[in-house]
Formats: sequence, C-alpha cells, structure tokens
Amino acid sequence: MNQQLKLASRPKGTPQPSDFLLESNPVPVLKDGEVLVKTIYISIDPAMRGWMNEGKSYVRPVEIGEVFRAVTAGKVIESQHPDFQEGQYVTGIWGVQEYAAVKGKELLKVDAKSLPLHTYIATLGMTGLTAYFGLLDSGQPKAGETVLVSGAAGAVGSTVGQIAKIKGCKVIGIAGGEDKCNYCVHELGFDACINYQTEDVRKALKAIAPEGIDIYFDNVGGELLDIALQQIRFKARIVICGAISQYNNTEPVKGPANYLSLLVNRARMEGIVVFDNFARYGEAAKEMAGWLLEGKLQSKVHIEKGIENFHPTLLKLFSGKNFGKLILQVSEE
Amino acid sequence: MNQQLKLASRPKGTPQPSDFLLESNPVPVLKDGEVLVKTIYISIDPAMRGWMNEGKSYVRPVEIGEVFRAVTAGKVIESQHPDFQEGQYVTGIWGVQEYAAVKGKELLKVDAKSLPLHTYIATLGMTGLTAYFGLLDSGQPKAGETVLVSGAAGAVGSTVGQIAKIKGCKVIGIAGGEDKCNYCVHELGFDACINYQTEDVRKALKAIAPEGIDIYFDNVGGELLDIALQQIRFKARIVICGAISQYNNTEPVKGPANYLSLLVNRARMEGIVVFDNFARYGEAAKEMAGWLLEGKLQSKVHIEKGIENFHPTLLKLFSGKNFGKLILQVSEE
Repeated sequence: MNQQLKLASRPKGTPQPSDFLLESNPVPVLKDGEVLVKTIYISIDPAMRGWMNEGKSYVRPVEIGEVFRAVTAGKVIESQHPDFQEGQYVTGIWGVQEYAAVKGKELLKVDAKSLPLHTYIATLGMTGLTAYFGLLDSGQPKAGETVLVSGAAGAVGSTVGQIAKIKGCKVIGIAGGEDKCNYCVHELGFDACINYQTEDVRKALKAIAPEGIDIYFDNVGGELLDIALQQIRFKARIVICGAISQYNNTEPVKGPANYLSLLVNRARMEGIVVFDNFARYGEAAKEMAGWLLEGKLQSKVHIEKGIENFHPTLLKLFSGKNFGKLILQVSEE
Repeated sequence: MNQQLKLASRPKGTPQPSDFLLESNPVPVLKDGEVLVKTIYISIDPAMRGWMNEGKSYVRPVEIGEVFRAVTAGKVIESQHPDFQEGQYVTGIWGVQEYAAVKGKELLKVDAKSLPLHTYIATLGMTGLTAYFGLLDSGQPKAGETVLVSGAAGAVGSTVGQIAKIKGCKVIGIAGGEDKCNYCVHELGFDACINYQTEDVRKALKAIAPEGIDIYFDNVGGELLDIALQQIRFKARIVICGAISQYNNTEPVKGPANYLSLLVNRARMEGIVVFDNFARYGEAAKEMAGWLLEGKLQSKVHIEKGIENFHPTLLKLFSGKNFGKLILQVSEE
C-alpha cells in the first residue's frame, strides 16, 4: 500500500492537523515511460505554506484532495523508461507520498556516493539554488561589501551567508537562539550573528555594521525588514526571498514602513523565485557541489521521520524549532 | 533691499506660516567671481518638505535661519565673473530670495528666447529630469508595455507619461479631479486616467489594464502603491520617486502591505533621485528640448506670484490644488 498525504482544506493562519488527510491507496501501476520511485526524503519548505492558499502565486496552488506538493528524493523500484534502472537514486517533485509513478523526464538521476542523498534536495536542491541565484544575481555581492541575512541558520540563509563569505563579503546573520548564532559564526564563518530572541536587533546591527548594509537577503519579513531598511547604504540591494514571519498571518501583512529609505539611498528591493533560473540549475549545482567537496560550503540537515509526522514537522519551520534544512524521512536509504 | 525667506522652525506635519520668516536685508555686495542675480521664478517642489526635516536624507537639511533652498531662474544684474554679463538669463539653486550673489560656476546660462524661461526649472529642470532618468533608467520601458503613473497631471507625472508615450507604451494616469484627468487624456495623449477622488482605483485599473502593469512610477505612495503592487506583472518595475501622501504624516509612514507581490512576480522596486545623473543632465535636457520644440512634449505651469506667498503656494502641492508645475514668480522677466 502507498500512504499519501493530501490537502483536506485550506488553512486559515497556522495549518491544523485537520487540514491534511493521510490516505492508504494501492501502489500505482506503471504506464509506458514511467518510473516507480520509493520516497526516501521529503523537503519541508516555507514555500509549502503558500501552496496551500487559493489564488495567484508563482506556482498554482495545491488543490483540495490532491497529494501535497513536495520536492523529493528516492530510489527507483521499477522502470518502464529506458534511462532508469532499479536501484538508481533520483530526485523530483512527486509530493508527500511513499511511492509514485513519475514520468522519466520529470526525474533527475543523482550520485548518492560522493555526497549524501539528501544534499540533492537541500544545498543542491531548491533551497541551495535559491540562495545561489538570489544572492549572486539579484544581490550582486562585491568583495568588501556588508551582507545581512535573516533566517541565517536556516536552509537558505546559511547558504547565502557562506556564499557571501566565498565572495569576500562581511557577513552578518540574524537567527533565533544562541546555538544557531554560534553555529553561524563558529562553524560557517559568519563575521557576526544577532540573536533576535535576546538582542535589540537595531542596536546590535548599528554596532556591528556602523558602515551600513549593502545587501539584505530577507527570508523573514516583518519588523526585521524595517530595521534593515533603516540601515541600508547608497545603492543597496534588498533580496526578497520570503517572509516566514507573515505566512500564517490572518491579519494583513505588515508592509515595510521604512520603504522610503529606498528613495533616500537609491536602493532596490527585488523579489526572487528559484524556478526562473531552471536553465542554469546544472551550472549552479556543479559549482556548489565543488564548494561542498572542498569544504567551503557546509550543509546541515534536520531530519524528522515518518510520513504521519508531516504536520508537526512543517510547524517547526514557523516556530524556528528546526536547526538546519528540514527534511522528512519516510523510508530507509 | 532683498527679501529673503528663511526656515524659522522644523514643521511637525503640515508646515505652518510660523515655520518661515520673511526678512528684509541689504542686497549683497559682489566678491570676485560672483554674479548678482535677480530672481524671477522659484520652483516649488515636494522635495522641499523633506529638506525641512532634520537628519539623514539625500541632501543635507536646510538649517534653521538659513535661506530656504529652491531651484531658481533669474536675470544677471551685475557680474564679477568673466562668463556672465548683465541681462543674461540663468538658472541655479540660490533659494527663496529676491537677489543673490552666486558663484559663476554655480549658474547655468539659458536661452530664454526659444523656450519660456520657466521651462528651464520645469520640464528642463529638476522635475523633468527626474521623470526622464527615473522612467528611462529605472523603469526601462519597452514598446507595448503598460505604464501606470500617479500624480499624473503633476510636474513629474505628466512628463513621465508623455515620455512613456514617446517610447510606445500604453499609459494610464492617476490624478485628482476630472479636469486633470481630461488634461492627461485629451491634451497629453495618455490612454486613460483614473480620478482617485471619484473612482475606485482598484476596479478602474483592473478594467483599463486587465493585462496588468509593467511599470508603476510612484509619486504618491500610501494606498495607491498598494493597489499598484496588486496589479503588477511578471518582472515589473516600480520606480519610487516620491510619496507626497506621506510627507506631512505625523504618524509612521504606511508601508506597502502588498510588497510580497514583488516576490510572486519577481518584480523590482527602486528609489531614484535625479542628482545621481548630474553628468548626463545636458544630454537629457537636449533630448527633451527637442521633444518640446517638436510638440511631442508639453509643459504646463501653474504660476503664483509674490515671495510673501511662498507658504500658501507650497501647501497647494500637498492638497493637489496646483495644476501643472508649480512656480512662484517674484519679479517680472
């Protein structure tokens, strides 16, 4: 049998257990050109919250009764496609289920020997590529510039900070908790990290970066965006990657009251979505795999287990209780 | 004697008459290299409100007791500089006063025969150049795109819309009043204009531009920016030129709650200040003078008279009671 997690209703505010339904259905039978994959790892991402909402966004919403969309890694069990054989490791977007029949052209073969399999849905997957393209294309960091990143210990933020260090920038993180801040500074090599749970972020930022901020990579939104706007320099770039502080709002989103700092500083605020760079995924993943193998880039994962734990695992993203790229493991490698 | 308008105190909210002081002082005596100019026209600009505030902005604030800063046009009365002779027309930034001794290098000679003198502080001055560089450099309009501009009948907005038409765009204005909207459509050639005083801007915009907005040139801020953000297209550009709805706020500025539309649409919001393009003023003014002479670009001025009327004239900007580039005339040509 195949356990499948489906969207049962559109959450208002924080998703509730009743918004999802775990169903047991027969393992699908392959058609020509399809591959049967057994899911091992499921990437748990903030973007999932947006996919639960109705209406226009950068991808279509998940429909009620549909298997919930997720980036996934697994193993080929059976193949009706000439390019895939049993036992091969693959990644794709086949969703929160134990098995799936996927068209061969929607799968990517990965080498799970040189790097752990989950790396391909973490640093070398959507999250790492978001960091790569967002920072390099939209942020355009130059050596010597000061880069601020929120959600600094998170999957995207930690990669942003490390790539900024590779590019010769001064890097300041904002994270929730002393352990996360210590990790950013002592393990990832950030120049500083502000613990928003205990520090006055505005004051701390002024003290650490009296020169101001050239790039702010925002994963959080809300008050942190306003504080960053106050501290930007001439021709600064703000990369809007996400706003996790606002995703479960039932009240209107808090807009950045200090947005006129863009005018004073001739600065730019730009939204980015990784999918736009599809044609360059290979090139980017190759460069990042090189950095991983050289030890210049570290990838921390936080693995939870069991498809039945999808809901509590997802909530860790919004409470900040994960430490590292959040992954749900639903079978052994 | 020389009447000079000085800043008496920093306004809180809407400037009051008591925030200014009109003083009579002797006409200055020239030093070597200086030119005595008699002021004819004074440009009244929204930016003036910002110059009254203390603290960091894109130019230093006007100090208490200082002649209030303004872009000016006038006539040479006497010269101790080899490049200037009595009777020549000049522009500069010598402030709200009837006479000034100005260094020759801070003056620009203008040809007041082919175009009216006030054109040089209107369409060919700071306001016109703001429109030119803001739209062309930051907005980057392409033929066939849809451009929305607020403050559409104003000095900057009317020029933005006309340049966008020259570039082959569909142009929609937002203005306050039927006469202003008629002017935009019937005299300036805009495709449409929404009267925010009587229409539901959101609905009107959806009806007029169901395809969405590629460029929003914002002079107003507040709710209009939020409405525009809801209607932007993929890779849209929002040019933040000003936020006149917010300048006299005593409460915090209203941030754009819909800013995450930048993320969904991979759009950009950028602040612009005309001074950054100083090196290209000549090139831009030459191109715009050509458009003026060819009749492709129209320049409407709203002239008030008398240096003693500086305060009520300034307030017209914020109440939207001016119609055309607002200019204070303090002597005859």
